[in-house]
Amino acid sequence: MKFTLLKQSTQNRARLGIIDTPRGRIQTPIFMPVGTVGSVKALTADDLEHCGAQIILGNTYHLYLRPGCEVISHMGGLHRFIHWDRPMLTDSGGFQFFSLAKLAKFTDDGVAFQSHIDGSRHFFSPEKSVEIQTILGSDIMMSLDWCMGYPATFAQAKTALEKTTDWAGKGYDYWQTQGAPNNLFGIVQGGMFKDLRTRSAQQLMQIDFSGFAIGGLSVGEPTDLMYEMADHTLPLLPENRPRYIMGVGTPENLVELTEMGCDMFDCVMPSRNARNGKLFTSRGDINIPNARFKFDPQPIDENCTCYTCQNYTRAYLRHLYKSRELLAYRLNTIHNLYYYLDLMATMREAIQEDRFDGFKRQFYETRSKGA
Amino acid sequence: MKFTLLKQSTQNRARLGIIDTPRGRIQTPIFMPVGTVGSVKALTADDLEHCGAQIILGNTYHLYLRPGCEVISHMGGLHRFIHWDRPMLTDSGGFQFFSLAKLAKFTDDGVAFQSHIDGSRHFFSPEKSVEIQTILGSDIMMSLDWCMGYPATFAQAKTALEKTTDWAGKGYDYWQTQGAPNNLFGIVQGGMFKDLRTRSAQQLMQIDFSGFAIGGLSVGEPTDLMYEMADHTLPLLPENRPRYIMGVGTPENLVELTEMGCDMFDCVMPSRNARNGKLFTSRGDINIPNARFKFDPQPIDENCTCYTCQNYTRAYLRHLYKSRELLAYRLNTIHNLYYYLDLMATMREAIQEDRFDGFKRQFYETRSKGA
Repeated sequence: MKFTLLKQSTQNRARLGIIDTPRGRIQTPIFMPVGTVGSVKALTADDLEHCGAQIILGNTYHLYLRPGCEVISHMGGLHRFIHWDRPMLTDSGGFQFFSLAKLAKFTDDGVAFQSHIDGSRHFFSPEKSVEIQTILGSDIMMSLDWCMGYPATFAQAKTALEKTTDWAGKGYDYWQTQGAPNNLFGIVQGGMFKDLRTRSAQQLMQIDFSGFAIGGLSVGEPTDLMYEMADHTLPLLPENRPRYIMGVGTPENLVELTEMGCDMFDCVMPSRNARNGKLFTSRGDINIPNARFKFDPQPIDENCTCYTCQNYTRAYLRHLYKSRELLAYRLNTIHNLYYYLDLMATMREAIQEDRFDGFKRQFYETRSKGA
Repeated sequence: MKFTLLKQSTQNRARLGIIDTPRGRIQTPIFMPVGTVGSVKALTADDLEHCGAQIILGNTYHLYLRPGCEVISHMGGLHRFIHWDRPMLTDSGGFQFFSLAKLAKFTDDGVAFQSHIDGSRHFFSPEKSVEIQTILGSDIMMSLDWCMGYPATFAQAKTALEKTTDWAGKGYDYWQTQGAPNNLFGIVQGGMFKDLRTRSAQQLMQIDFSGFAIGGLSVGEPTDLMYEMADHTLPLLPENRPRYIMGVGTPENLVELTEMGCDMFDCVMPSRNARNGKLFTSRGDINIPNARFKFDPQPIDENCTCYTCQNYTRAYLRHLYKSRELLAYRLNTIHNLYYYLDLMATMREAIQEDRFDGFKRQFYETRSKGA
């Protein structure tokens, strides 16, 4: 994998780049749709390509439990199994251990946990996480990290950071012994404490990771605090490596964090909101079940060129959603992911032409108009 | 609408025809996927075209309740509303009143019923059913009929038959006064009594319907009895009109009834079974959640050229189904409908080449091999 920085905005810290992998090129800044358990919910690879997806994410925790490494290995790896031949990133399991914390016990050596499906007992060490991701065959693997909720004390955040650094090293060493062609990213932790974030970044940068992520954000803290942490941490990271903020966020979050120099994003928001009838548009978000759409012959967004907007009306989408028709989930998801990926493409173009400030002004102005 | 009989098998009563409508040509014998509430569940029009659908069915009862005629009329009719520009057939509501009988009260003038959604009270007369179907704008409308379950006494079946004939006439007269371009079919009832079926057919044939359906089959009776009734009734119907057996059935049913001279079929079986993980193949049916498919790299059916079989393995489809992933429903539905529509195309070809007997022998032989 090779990261090339193509352009640096003169107006702010936004940057344009490309990541070249054996499975294809990724233009940054990029958003990665989340394919939790081997499927971006309701969509095929063709749908994802229509949406403009260049890389998707898989969840190691979920895939390890179901269908399991044995099946995926037998089927020739995750790409072949799910019929997606472009780049894929897998997380380490760290975030799921945090979000399903009742079932997880953190120790010095890793995380003991129970399956949320059948209660069976398992253990992830940093080496084990990398081993599983190698079996999955993802193009970008993530180091096992210790993720904290909000609020957390300084002492808690410090412990998590130290474990994260320790595990990052162990996972890296294991990866080196394997000689696998995959790439490995480190994850900065440190809670909402700038000095801990600095310490985490400095420690991880001692290791020659292919890229660096910022974890432990969007875990319940106020948006301004999330921005403050990202703004503090992003410039600490090496310029010649992709920077990835995990699990964020709204369209506004993507714009703000791209301006701060972030290259990669992932979030379940566009796909999950779609399944809940919440749709993004250039003029703000709408709730499709709302009565005001009952007779509305317009597409979700008149400026959108997605399959859904080209073929279906708000009135029909409202009917499908109210009737709990399966088609609703696919059409809504196509639209929301198309919106997110189109927003990223628009930002890349704005950086390329060094007019990010102008883009941002217009983005907020239009988003406030009402859809 | 114009029905042209192209070919009559010399081996049996199977026949090949075309129905020309302003919205396109239908090749018979044909299977019609069911789009209950304005959506063939989980599929778009593009998916349906891939499956080979030439005409789909909508349920008047369901569409009348939700989204309602006001919305569909405002949106320019059912075709535009659901984004399907080929022919569509709507049923009359009769079968739903039977299947949701707790909520329906049959009277001389029609059926009083309560919505299964909100309990609101409504009344369908034969005229009202035609009026609603005219608003929906379907290409083929069905007369309101009185459908009986199995078993029913001779007296019950006779009453239902007489009401059905009476309502057929009233609906037809109303339709004539409207001058709508849609077509109207009559529905033969008569329970499992041949003389009543004969009487029903003779009475309905006094009316110049565009086609004739056989209703009240596949309502719980043994398969042989269903075949006996169809075999008795089909030859009574006019040769120069399409013959449609409603709500049937399995692939074997389609083959047997096509051999008897039936031209049109509809059934929720392929789409409903798909959502329950039951998939049809040329070598028999399979339950995709079965453990034996866990590591199976084959497509559902190695002889199938559907989108699902071209791109996905049984192992992945099993995983999707076991994980309750939304994509499972779409991929399974595409396969099952493709299988049904391909079976009809194969039968049309066999009739065209006057080798239906040979086709049928091979069909049963292959279906028994095991998939």
